[in-house]
Amino acid sequence: MNATLVLESNMRLVGTNEAGKQTFFDVKEDNGGNNSAASPMEVLLQSVAACSSVDVLMIIRKKRKTITNFRVEMDGTRAEEHPKVFTKIHFTYILESPDAEEGDLIRAVELSQNTYCSAMEMVRRSGCEITWEQRIIRP
Amino acid sequence: MNATLVLESNMRLVGTNEAGKQTFFDVKEDNGGNNSAASPMEVLLQSVAACSSVDVLMIIRKKRKTITNFRVEMDGTRAEEHPKVFTKIHFTYILESPDAEEGDLIRAVELSQNTYCSAMEMVRRSGCEITWEQRIIRP
Repeated sequence: MNATLVLESNMRLVGTNEAGKQTFFDVKEDNGGNNSAASPMEVLLQSVAACSSVDVLMIIRKKRKTITNFRVEMDGTRAEEHPKVFTKIHFTYILESPDAEEGDLIRAVELSQNTYCSAMEMVRRSGCEITWEQRIIRP
Repeated sequence: MNATLVLESNMRLVGTNEAGKQTFFDVKEDNGGNNSAASPMEVLLQSVAACSSVDVLMIIRKKRKTITNFRVEMDGTRAEEHPKVFTKIHFTYILESPDAEEGDLIRAVELSQNTYCSAMEMVRRSGCEITWEQRIIRP
């Protein structure tokens, strides 16, 4: 997999994948940036949730359950000294569905967390403690 | 650090940081997506390069060197079996500057790689082999 990252201005960086799709990064003013986009560590955290979400959506849909809404909330704790790695991340998976049972969601998240999700596995192998919970909402 | 990720349509997901800045994710058609944005693992790879780039830019600027352009090229290799973690990543840091020496860039990348970059350290701790090279271009 190839990608490039190019400086646009000050600390604003633009990533481009092989298909030309762009992703934006910046840092806050107190780190010399302009806060025009999420920071690299914020984006990393979201990419882990996105990787897991794709698994969960795919598994729930394979069970022919309807998804009317889906979201993941993340709460990450970082080391106080450099390098400020994530030491703990908590994910809350929230599925709005008229017909999926809580067990469907739990099983989907377990499969993603324990078998499929590459990003989650990298974070886990790094030594970060990962916890999660799930919630079903009826539309 | 808190963030949320919300399903927009099909497999398209939108991450939002605490300041409301958005980041977009999607997957290719053969994974059930619409290829409208970079994939989670592509974005993860770019977030690592962005994290390191912020360090390098900061260090080069502290040395009062002029940056006329800066880019990072990434080449990531993934495991063939699930979970398809990155097993190897090569970064090429390219700095265009009228006055920075190659040694300035090497020292900046070393400081980022070995001391400051949180994302790089997480990837390294995950067991991924990281290599890099650098290049100075005169404007």
